[in-house]
Amino acid sequence: MKNEAFQECYPDDLSHCYGCGKNNHEGHHLKSYWHGQQTIAHFTPESYHTAIPGFVYGGLIASLIDCHGTGSAAAMAFRNEDRAMDTLPAIRFVTGALNVNYLAPTPQGVELELMGSFSEIKARKIIVDIVVSANGVVCAKGTVIAVKMPQSMAIKT
Amino acid sequence: MKNEAFQECYPDDLSHCYGCGKNNHEGHHLKSYWHGQQTIAHFTPESYHTAIPGFVYGGLIASLIDCHGTGSAAAMAFRNEDRAMDTLPAIRFVTGALNVNYLAPTPQGVELELMGSFSEIKARKIIVDIVVSANGVVCAKGTVIAVKMPQSMAIKT
Repeated sequence: MKNEAFQECYPDDLSHCYGCGKNNHEGHHLKSYWHGQQTIAHFTPESYHTAIPGFVYGGLIASLIDCHGTGSAAAMAFRNEDRAMDTLPAIRFVTGALNVNYLAPTPQGVELELMGSFSEIKARKIIVDIVVSANGVVCAKGTVIAVKMPQSMAIKT
Repeated sequence: MKNEAFQECYPDDLSHCYGCGKNNHEGHHLKSYWHGQQTIAHFTPESYHTAIPGFVYGGLIASLIDCHGTGSAAAMAFRNEDRAMDTLPAIRFVTGALNVNYLAPTPQGVELELMGSFSEIKARKIIVDIVVSANGVVCAKGTVIAVKMPQSMAIKT
């Protein structure tokens, strides 16, 4: 299996997400990969992603967890069908619920690591637990309840 | 009481938040106000805050809930001390936990309304429940468990 980021395999019309879409020129372009049975992503916040000087804005951390969660869910759905993520039909998941616990202030100027694990895998609902760490210190833990994207949201552009 | 936004009353060295800080030139500048016993904020997402074309990015919604929650918590703490928010000593809250349930796709090009209510009020912990709606339709509900900011985070700039 190629080591492409999950988000690079999304079809063009589903690649406009501010957090991770390759076609969103203003966005974060988060990239998630398999890491054994887990999923991994790295992201270095911009200097202006501040909460209080020296610490990263919690809203950004929530956003990264969100995108890594839905991306991981899609990747798992493809893996379960034993096909590559760049094959059709596309599978996308959206966030039904997002929970984040902020465990320690997240330092700025450091690459963050997001590690995802799967706690529930069903055809239409996948739960991804994500640990965010900086310099090996866990800063936040989050859970994304990802649900298969309803056809009503899939507007062709 | 003046009808200033909560965030306009934060002291300069605590006003760098990407979501709501008046001194963050790149940020969202969310502004929250009292609305009777509740708190209210309005925000119109940018065109690039996209999830899937036509719908708002969930990470932004989480971010707005986060800032409206911590701002509302600070405002309540000042109200409980019967003093204005622009008086010293400053009180700021940070997010201990953030939960968001996405109930309906959030349409783009619409001003969002965030309405906050208080479900728990203690000296060091305030829980704010927030309803996000667009055109009168509830799109998301969130809860912010806000904890009084530890002194260790209050770095003077």
